[in-house]
Amino acid sequence: MLSQDHYKSRALISPAILARCEPVVYELEPSVTLAPATLNAAQRDAYRENGFLFLPDLFTPAEAAGLHDEMQTMRTDFTAAGRAEVIAEPGSSDVRSIFDVHHLSDVFASLMRDPRVLDVAREILGSEVYIHQSRINYKPGFSGKEFYWHSDFETWHTEDGMPAMRAVSCSILLTDNDEFNGPLMLIPGSHQHFISCAGETPDENYKQSLKKQEYGVPDELLLRYLSDLGGITSCKGRAGSVVFFDCNTMHGSNGNITPYPRSNVFFVYNSIENQLQAPQSGLKPRPEYIAARHNLASLEPEPLAIA
Amino acid sequence: MLSQDHYKSRALISPAILARCEPVVYELEPSVTLAPATLNAAQRDAYRENGFLFLPDLFTPAEAAGLHDEMQTMRTDFTAAGRAEVIAEPGSSDVRSIFDVHHLSDVFASLMRDPRVLDVAREILGSEVYIHQSRINYKPGFSGKEFYWHSDFETWHTEDGMPAMRAVSCSILLTDNDEFNGPLMLIPGSHQHFISCAGETPDENYKQSLKKQEYGVPDELLLRYLSDLGGITSCKGRAGSVVFFDCNTMHGSNGNITPYPRSNVFFVYNSIENQLQAPQSGLKPRPEYIAARHNLASLEPEPLAIA
Repeated sequence: MLSQDHYKSRALISPAILARCEPVVYELEPSVTLAPATLNAAQRDAYRENGFLFLPDLFTPAEAAGLHDEMQTMRTDFTAAGRAEVIAEPGSSDVRSIFDVHHLSDVFASLMRDPRVLDVAREILGSEVYIHQSRINYKPGFSGKEFYWHSDFETWHTEDGMPAMRAVSCSILLTDNDEFNGPLMLIPGSHQHFISCAGETPDENYKQSLKKQEYGVPDELLLRYLSDLGGITSCKGRAGSVVFFDCNTMHGSNGNITPYPRSNVFFVYNSIENQLQAPQSGLKPRPEYIAARHNLASLEPEPLAIA
Repeated sequence: MLSQDHYKSRALISPAILARCEPVVYELEPSVTLAPATLNAAQRDAYRENGFLFLPDLFTPAEAAGLHDEMQTMRTDFTAAGRAEVIAEPGSSDVRSIFDVHHLSDVFASLMRDPRVLDVAREILGSEVYIHQSRINYKPGFSGKEFYWHSDFETWHTEDGMPAMRAVSCSILLTDNDEFNGPLMLIPGSHQHFISCAGETPDENYKQSLKKQEYGVPDELLLRYLSDLGGITSCKGRAGSVVFFDCNTMHGSNGNITPYPRSNVFFVYNSIENQLQAPQSGLKPRPEYIAARHNLASLEPEPLAIA
């Protein structure tokens, strides 16, 4: 793969900016059948142009409340159990993230199959899909720390061997996200540019990077360039709203000193045609709960079942 | 003073919430003469009710540009000179704040006397005023850290011996402040409640607290209570806009990962009737560049002179 790698990063070279090679919205393979009401043409165009799409109130308040309860239960139970999937905030024991929630919870396993989200992912990627990674980001009130700017694809390509830009992240708001509590910020149009990062990747980088990323950090000059070109947008809305964003869209979020947590659940849908290869530069693959490699099966749409 | 102190804090007691004793907008002493166009009745009422007032575009773009240039020059010169007034960000050598800017710079010394700001302070406090403290907060792009929630009066009363709530902070935006780059957030109505904080104050606390406050930190439950009551507002506007806020208004700001700095200059106007006494609990007074005690003179209005 390396000899013809379009998206080389962290190879001791200087930062660079490279044009994207792949489509953003893929042609639908004839075998894929979607629910009748998925995206309309304007929504597809907006996603293609901006690299993200925000769908307010996609889930009902009752559904959002049920998902929120499940999240709180998981925080208590899995923190007590000391599971590796639970990541603490830097310099604290507060829960920052829990990974692999679609394996840890029947509710979230059901959520990822709901056609309101799954069929959007299938439509964008034009194929059957599976979950590459799932996680809850808690961002607690008072002390929630920032997530610095990054392209997910930069990490997934380098550390996980994801071949192409054919994955979409789906973030479902589990609390209200407003301008004060550190909502997701995105740079519209940034998905068209691959920011190659300087530096090498240490082994088992994920043990540190999930708290605070130190490798695969984009250059400040290039971030400024992307922001000057596209501006910055944030995703604000009630719990139950959903944002889909391309795997290469530059995004991040500020910390949260407000009393109100800003909690979201992420599902990363990857095309079944885009399964992981070997990581770059002989790195050891990351654990299965961060980057799925085994027992992958295409997801079948099925409405959310929640007590 | 301590025997009849209404606003006891950091005395090893539990957190508490106490009603404010003083007015917010003071009756004007007959000897004070204001410029004809200061605040109107609606603005005075809004300040009294909310504990702050935002005045967009009070200074012209040309004036704002001149102030911005002066700020950048100071950052370079005074950092190079290794002056005590320059405070670094926690865990970094980036400039977080520069204190005493009205003594370090003729431009800022002129700015604090401009009637557009000085007369608002005189009108609110109903008396002649002097500068208790001045500072620039840089909040650089990419790495600017948060300022956690606090009431300035809690610190000034405890560490500086400021007797009463008769001071107003004036923050002049030196860059555009938007929802993304960590604008000042305020809790409307919070100025009517004094949050007494738990814990004792160590000697020379300011050496740490100006980077990151660890004493005089309000209780989370009480912060939540104030926010639930009054909500959260932020001050967004172009460079040259100004916010006045009461010394006891609870405020703070999130960090800034955007490429765009969020820089403001603060002048704290204190009533000449409200000069500092001894700090609480035998603490040593903080340095003059943080809390003025000597050679205080009432400020005379004079229009901003900028090259």
